[in-house]
Amino acid sequence: MNLQSRVRKLRAELAAKGLDAFISVQNARYLSGTTAAAAVIVSDEGPVLLCSRLEFDRAKRESTIKDIQTYFPRRVPLRRDERVYFGEFWQLLAERLKRLNARKVGYDCLRRETLQKLQSAHKADYLELPELITEMRKIKSAQEISWLRKAAGLAVEGMFRATEFIDEGRSELEIAAEAEYAMRKKGSEGTSFSTIVASGENSWLPHATATRRRLREGELIVVDLGATYKGYASDMARTFSLKPTARQLRLLSIVRRAQATAIKRVRSGAKAAGIDMAAREVISRAGYGQFCSHGTGHGVGLEIHEAPSLAPGSEDILRTGMVITVEPGIYVPKIGGVRFEDMVLVTKKSCDILTD
Amino acid sequence: MNLQSRVRKLRAELAAKGLDAFISVQNARYLSGTTAAAAVIVSDEGPVLLCSRLEFDRAKRESTIKDIQTYFPRRVPLRRDERVYFGEFWQLLAERLKRLNARKVGYDCLRRETLQKLQSAHKADYLELPELITEMRKIKSAQEISWLRKAAGLAVEGMFRATEFIDEGRSELEIAAEAEYAMRKKGSEGTSFSTIVASGENSWLPHATATRRRLREGELIVVDLGATYKGYASDMARTFSLKPTARQLRLLSIVRRAQATAIKRVRSGAKAAGIDMAAREVISRAGYGQFCSHGTGHGVGLEIHEAPSLAPGSEDILRTGMVITVEPGIYVPKIGGVRFEDMVLVTKKSCDILTD
Repeated sequence: MNLQSRVRKLRAELAAKGLDAFISVQNARYLSGTTAAAAVIVSDEGPVLLCSRLEFDRAKRESTIKDIQTYFPRRVPLRRDERVYFGEFWQLLAERLKRLNARKVGYDCLRRETLQKLQSAHKADYLELPELITEMRKIKSAQEISWLRKAAGLAVEGMFRATEFIDEGRSELEIAAEAEYAMRKKGSEGTSFSTIVASGENSWLPHATATRRRLREGELIVVDLGATYKGYASDMARTFSLKPTARQLRLLSIVRRAQATAIKRVRSGAKAAGIDMAAREVISRAGYGQFCSHGTGHGVGLEIHEAPSLAPGSEDILRTGMVITVEPGIYVPKIGGVRFEDMVLVTKKSCDILTD
Repeated sequence: MNLQSRVRKLRAELAAKGLDAFISVQNARYLSGTTAAAAVIVSDEGPVLLCSRLEFDRAKRESTIKDIQTYFPRRVPLRRDERVYFGEFWQLLAERLKRLNARKVGYDCLRRETLQKLQSAHKADYLELPELITEMRKIKSAQEISWLRKAAGLAVEGMFRATEFIDEGRSELEIAAEAEYAMRKKGSEGTSFSTIVASGENSWLPHATATRRRLREGELIVVDLGATYKGYASDMARTFSLKPTARQLRLLSIVRRAQATAIKRVRSGAKAAGIDMAAREVISRAGYGQFCSHGTGHGVGLEIHEAPSLAPGSEDILRTGMVITVEPGIYVPKIGGVRFEDMVLVTKKSCDILTD
């Protein structure tokens, strides 16, 4: 689905729901292609991009939505080629909605304050409907898949570099430095989240970062990292060991097995909760259920965490074109933490591992 | 001000405002020292830290608030040493407020949905009062200043490395890679924002990133970067040139002059808006007022942008112990963009440049 067809699809959704307009703040890049901080109004009149005067040049270059309106909170001298609405974002928004005579307006995310001001400036039914675009974003286009594949490839480069540097006496920060450098050199636009290098007692924190701690023998080391390509994120984790104990080796093998079991079940039509359960069962049967704390995976796209969710209670059904992570983990205090994570593309009969 | 005295100060504020409790989501690290995603409830009964079960081990290690309550949305097997409230964050929050019999409750930031559910579970007056902590955070403690100084030193290292790599044919991404690597190697916990290397037509975007574009002669190159140390951010910008034109040299000299003029006025008691105006006047008198689009500076701390604000209309007065940026800029399409930015510590009679 290219950008224009995303807008068209959203318009069809609006028509079906009887909405006169939709304000998107969280999905401006998804709808327009611009990296500028912007909002998009979709209606029958065609899409409009709103952004601050400071973002105009960037938006103009990048956005497929060519009707761009800029605002600035105070009167300032302008360049000759500029048209600027002097006022706040919500004022311009209200003005545009008034012009559309929009009575029923959906939005994905608006700050409470913005919404209150908007209400007072233009009376309408405002409905929080983030799912309209969240749902669309679950299925990736060929273009998005190629960018996610590229981002995943960069993560693999970073992981490879980390592997080379995992050694006694090295600090977690040094390993993060090397991995990030390798990804950057190959073209990453930045990490998709704070690189995790979690050794020893840090390894059993499901959410860690990288610290000044130095690696020692007898430890597990979780490395979890990601790059960005054309705005698309990647996410990958491996667990390393330095002269591991038998118990640590057992943890590694359980999680590897859990991951393989889960990946084997990925295909279009599979229940996301079922895949989570499959991984969880391997871990529980091995006697580590109480140490398996987080969900088994999540969608990846412009955001590092997006729909669908592979967790207990999830109602998501996997479909061809979804890109998800599969990342079971066990975190045992005093022994170590283990997580293996791959990014996979859901296909009709199975999946394609992007972080291979 | 150490962490305990921050909580004490907040309690005094609550008493003065007749509040029974305060919920902090945005300032949990500021109040407790933990990097875990958490919330803090401050009341007469002493502070409590609430976090997900997944964050407990991290919170326990780091938090100076020792009363830690964890929650988890579904029943799961627990480790022997665990006590977990099975329910959502807002349910645990409501339970705690009920126990405190809190009728008037302040908070810094709560999602609309959380607030609605909280209201329905525990009736009270909920008041959005982010300024209670924003105000405290403006003035940095000796400890915070030493960490900000360290973070600023890391930015200087990054900038030094960038300087060595600015050359015809290099890509913006390569330069970002080198700068980030240098900061990481010296101990940065990560960039404080996406590194900007903006050359040629990217230089006149006030908000740019780093792209695959390669540097050419006759261009200006804005490098704007920052590191993190103990969670504290740094922020620094320099503009470089490759065989610049006379017009480009003039832009560089105007902005340098604007920055020097502004920095000279920084001292305890100075009006933030006055410092902005001083920089702006230098630029306007040189005939570039319409190309000077953003404010002159902002506070830096745990967040890259925090109070005070050095911009038109700001009512902030600078005080000893504030750490701010001074960063005038000019962005002229087809010619180039220029920004010079330093982080300074406000002192009684002047300021101390941290990014020197």
